[in-house]
Amino acid sequence: TGVVPIAVAYGDGIGPEITESVLRVLDHADAPLSYDVIEVGRSAYERGITSGIPDEAWDAIRRNRVFLKGPITTPQGGGYKSLNVTIRKALSLFANVRPTTSYAPYVASPHPDMDLVIIRENEEDLYAGIEHRQTQEVHQILKLITRPGSERIVRYAFEYARAYGRTNVTCMTKDNIQKQTDGLFHEVFREVAREYPDIESDHQIIDIGAARVAAQPEAFDVIVTPNLYGDILSDIAAQIAGSVGLAGSANVGAQVAMFEAVHGSAPDIAGRGIANPSGLLVAATQMLVHIGASEVAQTIRNAWLRTLEDGIHPADIYREGVSKQKVGSEGFTNAVI
Amino acid sequence: TGVVPIAVAYGDGIGPEITESVLRVLDHADAPLSYDVIEVGRSAYERGITSGIPDEAWDAIRRNRVFLKGPITTPQGGGYKSLNVTIRKALSLFANVRPTTSYAPYVASPHPDMDLVIIRENEEDLYAGIEHRQTQEVHQILKLITRPGSERIVRYAFEYARAYGRTNVTCMTKDNIQKQTDGLFHEVFREVAREYPDIESDHQIIDIGAARVAAQPEAFDVIVTPNLYGDILSDIAAQIAGSVGLAGSANVGAQVAMFEAVHGSAPDIAGRGIANPSGLLVAATQMLVHIGASEVAQTIRNAWLRTLEDGIHPADIYREGVSKQKVGSEGFTNAVI
Ligand SMILES: CC(C)[C@H](C(=O)O)[C@@H](O)C(=O)O
Ligand SMILES: CC(C)[C@H](C(=O)O)[C@@H](O)C(=O)O
Repeated sequence: TGVVPIAVAYGDGIGPEITESVLRVLDHADAPLSYDVIEVGRSAYERGITSGIPDEAWDAIRRNRVFLKGPITTPQGGGYKSLNVTIRKALSLFANVRPTTSYAPYVASPHPDMDLVIIRENEEDLYAGIEHRQTQEVHQILKLITRPGSERIVRYAFEYARAYGRTNVTCMTKDNIQKQTDGLFHEVFREVAREYPDIESDHQIIDIGAARVAAQPEAFDVIVTPNLYGDILSDIAAQIAGSVGLAGSANVGAQVAMFEAVHGSAPDIAGRGIANPSGLLVAATQMLVHIGASEVAQTIRNAWLRTLEDGIHPADIYREGVSKQKVGSEGFTNAVI
Repeated sequence: TGVVPIAVAYGDGIGPEITESVLRVLDHADAPLSYDVIEVGRSAYERGITSGIPDEAWDAIRRNRVFLKGPITTPQGGGYKSLNVTIRKALSLFANVRPTTSYAPYVASPHPDMDLVIIRENEEDLYAGIEHRQTQEVHQILKLITRPGSERIVRYAFEYARAYGRTNVTCMTKDNIQKQTDGLFHEVFREVAREYPDIESDHQIIDIGAARVAAQPEAFDVIVTPNLYGDILSDIAAQIAGSVGLAGSANVGAQVAMFEAVHGSAPDIAGRGIANPSGLLVAATQMLVHIGASEVAQTIRNAWLRTLEDGIHPADIYREGVSKQKVGSEGFTNAVI
């Protein structure tokens, strides 16, 4: 297989440090990639590009169809739309795939056996961005659930389960209250589930469902859910597995796929060389699988697991008694290499 | 103090069993109460009362101003509004107060030191019930956040912290995305916090906030949050503390206060005599404090804690090695008595 060109954005906050780390690992592993580095986020805003993403960057993403994205920050204030959400919507990246595995005993976790995947609808729900002030004192936002949007993500979840040999898909909604919106999502889930008799399926109300994920994540396999519940559930799952700093995600559309860490740009620790590059590194391995370079993905994953196993840990996962050596971004990257 | 008349609804599913248990304990402790038993839920629906609550029941609740409610079930289907939500809204029970404490080592929990209170806004948000089908395929629901509603609940949270000697209030919203709605809630939080310089305050985005509650609940004291986040957070907190079956809640308004378990009517185990009455019993102790009968509340709480400590556990909290005797609703109630 030849070299695959991808778009890369270093991002903001800890973005540049961790992206640098990840590219060093990819290069060292001879990943069959070439990089089209694009400007997205802070520096674009500072140049007066109010969307945070210049036309050339859009072109590069659409042309390359694969995009590795460091965490980015949208300026505060009502005038700016979240850049992450803008990208997901503009490219119709409808599926946000967030696997979470425990790395215990090498990373402290009360749930050594958890291994679940959250498949989060990525365009609709309260992320539709339709918000208004009815009066100074009464503000409203529209939550949107559509049949085609629900069908696409639910089908994706069942296909994913089949492809990866998983046996159960759980749907979570709040359809005891949101009968027409979440009710539609649940109804579509029931319909689609019938087409996959080889995969078990069930439904849980999001309140008790999230509680069970928090208390007994081992009981779950694949979870499919509307956007905002997926946002909350994936942070919960990642955190109890060890740290949200270890989780990567794929944002998949029909044309383009974008890979990013689940965590944000962590401006409070930016520039101090202590950020954990693992989230973006895991996302990069998802990306390698996506382009068909599974062997390189496996090599990198093994090296990374070995580093965790050796107890060479950045501050966010460092625990007395479990970890052996506290390292910064560079020390961690060197160990993986 | 004289006898306080209260409205009591036995509810549906496991409701009658656990309400029976709780009334037995209250009577045995000579709680200064008289009961005005009202019909709410299933039997009302079956008599053709489409709201699920007859006029006499409304009158009794409004007259007594204190209401102990067993879990109820709203019939499935688009035609019925949740009865729980109807009651909260009709009586303007704006604050849903959900304390969660760990009972470890007597009840197994990975978080022996957790002791937090979730103060959940109880009328607005996606519970406003404004939902419609734009087309067969596009469904929408309005989320509502108002300044007076936000101010009232945030102020309640700070007053609660002061009254109960708690030192920190954390606000959780998703205002990086929902800038006008959740943004308003957060803005009001910042304003009100300034009036309480004796109480520390901070804000977390709900995704990582929920993740921290799940992973490190010991770090939280009082949490104030919009309705739906509070719904999810309180199930998470209760479940990791031991079981959602142990959590009670107060729904407080200016005129009326309603006390109920956090869990639902559990139709799957109804009538089998195995339900754990603890959630409603804890709610009843919150009610006794509310009417000024703190001593009786303490007596009942101590007897209940002693029963947990003795390892006399219903099935939902029974754990080999921690529990000593598995009991049904009646056995548990006898032990408390
Ligand atoms: C940064 C924010 C817009 C984003 C989201 O809410 O989706 C983040 O929390 C995530 O989970 O990727
Ligand atoms: C039954 C349901 C309407 C209710 C809610 O969503 O508020 C329940 O989950 C609760 O937490 O009291």
